[in-house]
Amino acid sequence: MGWGGAGLALGAVAAGGTVALTRGGDATVPVAESGAAVPFHGAHQAGIATAVQDRLHFAAFDVKTKDRAELVQLLKDWTRAAERMTAGHEVGEGAYGGLPEAPPDDTGEALGLKPSRLTLTIGFGPSLFDGRFGLAGKRPGALVDLPKFPGDNLDPARSGGDLCVQACADDPQVAVHAIRNLARIGFGKVAVRWSQLGFGKTSSTTPDAQTPRNLFGFKDGTRNIAGTETDRLAKHVWVAGKGAEGPAAWMDGGSYLVARRIRMNVETWDRTPLAEQEDIFGRDKKEGAPVGKAKEHDEPFLKAMKPDSHVRLAHPDTNGGATILRRGYSFTDGTDGLGRLDAGLFFLAYQRDVRTGFIPVQTSLSRSDALNEYTQHVGSALFAIPPGVRDKDDWWGRALFA
Amino acid sequence: MGWGGAGLALGAVAAGGTVALTRGGDATVPVAESGAAVPFHGAHQAGIATAVQDRLHFAAFDVKTKDRAELVQLLKDWTRAAERMTAGHEVGEGAYGGLPEAPPDDTGEALGLKPSRLTLTIGFGPSLFDGRFGLAGKRPGALVDLPKFPGDNLDPARSGGDLCVQACADDPQVAVHAIRNLARIGFGKVAVRWSQLGFGKTSSTTPDAQTPRNLFGFKDGTRNIAGTETDRLAKHVWVAGKGAEGPAAWMDGGSYLVARRIRMNVETWDRTPLAEQEDIFGRDKKEGAPVGKAKEHDEPFLKAMKPDSHVRLAHPDTNGGATILRRGYSFTDGTDGLGRLDAGLFFLAYQRDVRTGFIPVQTSLSRSDALNEYTQHVGSALFAIPPGVRDKDDWWGRALFA
Repeated sequence: MGWGGAGLALGAVAAGGTVALTRGGDATVPVAESGAAVPFHGAHQAGIATAVQDRLHFAAFDVKTKDRAELVQLLKDWTRAAERMTAGHEVGEGAYGGLPEAPPDDTGEALGLKPSRLTLTIGFGPSLFDGRFGLAGKRPGALVDLPKFPGDNLDPARSGGDLCVQACADDPQVAVHAIRNLARIGFGKVAVRWSQLGFGKTSSTTPDAQTPRNLFGFKDGTRNIAGTETDRLAKHVWVAGKGAEGPAAWMDGGSYLVARRIRMNVETWDRTPLAEQEDIFGRDKKEGAPVGKAKEHDEPFLKAMKPDSHVRLAHPDTNGGATILRRGYSFTDGTDGLGRLDAGLFFLAYQRDVRTGFIPVQTSLSRSDALNEYTQHVGSALFAIPPGVRDKDDWWGRALFA
Repeated sequence: MGWGGAGLALGAVAAGGTVALTRGGDATVPVAESGAAVPFHGAHQAGIATAVQDRLHFAAFDVKTKDRAELVQLLKDWTRAAERMTAGHEVGEGAYGGLPEAPPDDTGEALGLKPSRLTLTIGFGPSLFDGRFGLAGKRPGALVDLPKFPGDNLDPARSGGDLCVQACADDPQVAVHAIRNLARIGFGKVAVRWSQLGFGKTSSTTPDAQTPRNLFGFKDGTRNIAGTETDRLAKHVWVAGKGAEGPAAWMDGGSYLVARRIRMNVETWDRTPLAEQEDIFGRDKKEGAPVGKAKEHDEPFLKAMKPDSHVRLAHPDTNGGATILRRGYSFTDGTDGLGRLDAGLFFLAYQRDVRTGFIPVQTSLSRSDALNEYTQHVGSALFAIPPGVRDKDDWWGRALFA
């Protein structure tokens, strides 16, 4: 296709899709149309460096079966279903094929919809390695139990999980359909532990794209890792070298995902003066420029910011270089019973090692961030994200269960 | 603008927007681009006959103030904010204007987004007429307390409300922004009682458009009222004549909205054979054609269907001609604690009088519909929808509070 192997993980368009080429960094990036298909196979799983889609449905699962062979078969079945759905096909013969006396192979609500850049990304949680499936010896050192951070108010019903699947698409019906069909295929073997819909992306992994605004009305995470920055991806996102040795050998080409449900007290925020809001972030609200600068993408001068400002505390220079790829979504889940919207950020961050990524950043933020007055972390999970599925014979987790 | 007054309620495009003209029925319908603005002013409120937008944020409010003048001022403030937001502007001077020492006039997360065909539609619930605001003598006869239907399992925390606002837009961030800013403006005077995000439309009010699929994978409500069918709108949707006399004089040009949160047991449905699914609906799944017919829009032959099939029981011929305009959305709100998705249909139906609209239809369905095995009504509300805001001097509810 002419733009190199990295394109596979960067939202390249499947044969037949329409491709627009833009210049980004030193690579030519294919930018998929919103209806197009993102290739499922590759060295890395799609849905990480892929240009961020508009909508999210994320699900964490508990494994109910105690039979390792049954779990392996499920992962194979899921992989084949994911191949079909990301290409825009129904599972199996679809919603109307097969035998009339049998349940349909597909639930059908995505019939006639485009692939919508659907990506499905699987992860394995620490609890999967507890001994039930003979995987205790394969738990990577980086798959730690996250420490409790100051201010954490975690709900176990919104935290953890043996497995996760992140479904991202430009059409929410396509993302919801994919999670539902994976849950259906897993009936009796896995159960949904928690799930989260995200209605709006809050990060961009496309170079030079506008950073979307979060529910505080600010652009945040301006200097995110772009899908074209192969050097930064290699340094900060993809597991390799020592991170893929010993028990973690199966993680070569994978990553680690931190998911945090962050409730935002938008009503309190909305009564905060503009100057204070801008001080708290360390940016102006309209343009998104760091304090004292003119443009969103200008390099921040940290010493001009208040010591407890969000940008300053989250910056790699404050955290020993810690850099993560952010892929979070805004959520609004009804009301909290007190007349307030249950809204916030479903934070998703990919990194090579949480011990040098999320943990130092969140340690710094949770202690001092001025934003903490307006936010609360209410859900948390960490997942090992295995490498990509190479081809039609490969499946999610093959190296782990080998 | 050349397509007649009815166009105002049909998704006509504001000055400056792009207009595509299509032929529908016997009228020329302006079809707005998804980024365009829908005019706020008109004889009827927008968001009813308007071509259905992709996303929904719906909120019901309890009025907390006991001061009628304060409530009236809020309705005026809301109207001015709704005029601005539906035109694609921030409230007041926006998220970054005004004085730095004051909270911003707008929360800011829709800055830079298009109007996205945002409509804001207000309604008044029965409880508003309980005497607190001197409105007891103005409660329309049609604003009944809905009867309890067989199978109802209503959660009071998801039912009722003094006021409602339906926000529909093609971009969910625009709809969420609008509800949030109305809630912010109402702080201390109203509180959100419940709210609902809808990720995918399940109905079309555009002639000849494909009916979107619900989460059972079926096209339902095929013969919905189109925004161009002025005769059917006048007959079944807009209040006029005797419905706008006496205590209901302020409802001339208005409508009545039934909102029902219908949980769908998708996991059970997904294990039901295809032939049984098709019998239950009275349609085939792929095309959506009624039993024995070839095409979705073919006239159903009710006697060919099972007596308890959904299409047969919901059909006007089964219910004395009862016809409603449907505008519902699919929802998925996480998990139910039992490993199942909390998913379903947020049913929205507009009609001239619920006593000859929703009530007979739901009486028939709740008694006999084969679909009831897979659904449960868990939230319910009825609202009187006043007529449209005529101009810049008019406001939501003026005739009611006159």
